[in-house]
Amino acid sequence: MRKINVAIIGWGNVGRGCKRAIAESDDMRLVGVVRRPASLYKNREELQDTIVVSDVSELVNKPDVLLLCIPSREIPEKTRMYQKMGYCTVDSYDEHEKILSLKREDDISAKATKTVSVVSSGWDPGTDSVVRALMKMVSITGRTTTTFGGEKGGRSMGHTAVVKTIEGVVDAVALTLANGRGGQKRRVYVQSEKGADEKAIEKAIKQDSYFVNDPTEVLFVPNINKYNTLHHEAELERTAQEVNQKYTVEGNNPEFTANVMVASARAVMNVKARGDYGAYTLLELPLVDFLPGASLEEKLEGY
Amino acid sequence: MRKINVAIIGWGNVGRGCKRAIAESDDMRLVGVVRRPASLYKNREELQDTIVVSDVSELVNKPDVLLLCIPSREIPEKTRMYQKMGYCTVDSYDEHEKILSLKREDDISAKATKTVSVVSSGWDPGTDSVVRALMKMVSITGRTTTTFGGEKGGRSMGHTAVVKTIEGVVDAVALTLANGRGGQKRRVYVQSEKGADEKAIEKAIKQDSYFVNDPTEVLFVPNINKYNTLHHEAELERTAQEVNQKYTVEGNNPEFTANVMVASARAVMNVKARGDYGAYTLLELPLVDFLPGASLEEKLEGY
Repeated sequence: MRKINVAIIGWGNVGRGCKRAIAESDDMRLVGVVRRPASLYKNREELQDTIVVSDVSELVNKPDVLLLCIPSREIPEKTRMYQKMGYCTVDSYDEHEKILSLKREDDISAKATKTVSVVSSGWDPGTDSVVRALMKMVSITGRTTTTFGGEKGGRSMGHTAVVKTIEGVVDAVALTLANGRGGQKRRVYVQSEKGADEKAIEKAIKQDSYFVNDPTEVLFVPNINKYNTLHHEAELERTAQEVNQKYTVEGNNPEFTANVMVASARAVMNVKARGDYGAYTLLELPLVDFLPGASLEEKLEGY
Repeated sequence: MRKINVAIIGWGNVGRGCKRAIAESDDMRLVGVVRRPASLYKNREELQDTIVVSDVSELVNKPDVLLLCIPSREIPEKTRMYQKMGYCTVDSYDEHEKILSLKREDDISAKATKTVSVVSSGWDPGTDSVVRALMKMVSITGRTTTTFGGEKGGRSMGHTAVVKTIEGVVDAVALTLANGRGGQKRRVYVQSEKGADEKAIEKAIKQDSYFVNDPTEVLFVPNINKYNTLHHEAELERTAQEVNQKYTVEGNNPEFTANVMVASARAVMNVKARGDYGAYTLLELPLVDFLPGASLEEKLEGY
């Protein structure tokens, strides 16, 4: 069977995770990494066995699927651009309240270009969203809470990416901490440029739509390394009179996001083979599409 | 919007749970309960507001979907029979190793009769199977274990039903107990007929395919009531280098099985509306099909 040709767009923590996840998937092959021209020659050591280009059209082996490992806010425009070039895409767009409208626009564009996109297919939104849907099936009544980060806090990739784009920020890490059951607060460590206006940075963070709804603490530190982490965790709980459910996941955030994105690349190929062009969240596709295996027997193993 | 007409086939614990679950679902209506002629006038108090018949054709409001709340071993024959009568079905068939072959036969029959069946759509197999699939997506490597019943044990409905069919058994409850991580053992309480051959009963239990693979203890008791329970629990765990996941569910087993079956009745209608006749496990259908809500917006709420 021909392997699925996958290209990684963007080389951050998620891009790195995708490289590993592709290597762990027998049905996939990495055909290259696309980076900004300015970054083309950075981190060459970890990319020595990989083709790195600044434009997807330069890749010798045409990718079947592009994994968009770029900041969420760049995703809408880039998705539309790649769809117009005829590429299928996978993203982990993470602004929950905008997902559906984005999906609808991607869907129109995907149908027009005969491509398939799987959107918001990371961990949360993504597989956590699927768990929340399942929990509703298992208990019709009840209330679902999602508590992120625990007491020590975990890295939010979306929030971290947003802070890094603010003028005067050299590096940052944005943590999400549990604030009671189903509640959350944010702590942002910022390493600023010499002479930067820290008051303005703090204000820009707190006013950003990623932060505006949660209590947020901003701490300026001389060096981010000491506070950096890739760990994250979440606890999803649904309690009802007759049934109690709890799902916990903890570990390296970019790694599990990457795993889900790579599974979504497989789904893209299955959906495309049926001619069902369009853009889909994880809930709109059968999960067998995401699972490895040459036959339904293999995919349903352990059902 | 017209409500989905649902009939319950069989009046045991799961049938009872389905009646409650239908009442909790705004888009559903119970059009009747079908029972064996011999049981037609039993438990009339709990069925006083419900039409009870001995044959589905007697129902004045034709059901769109039949929920088969009968012992697993009666399901293959009954599914085929109802499909030939033009009915769509939902079952919670629970012999894991036979699910795929049964599904394939149901699928042929469903396509021939232009019906839709959702099979093995209870809790385990069912939503637990979906969680196991998700766990594989979140961590590509690693090992998934499912541990049932905890230390105190929980009621296995399938095993209990099987024991009740053995000659000389008045009543029974079959418990599944955790036997180390991912392991299980069985304990069966049996109330036998006066003068029954208890050695023969014990042998019949231990040789049955439901029990033959697990350490099984059979205890004869004068009255089952003291040992009876509807509680069950499971812990699904997947551990890998980068990600750890755990899902626990505990509560009233027939209630959560019923909830999933009723959600599956909704899926049947959505799949049928698309003309995709056939038989499906939960992994082969998009989860939005199972969720309540008039629009995709409502179904994806909280994504």
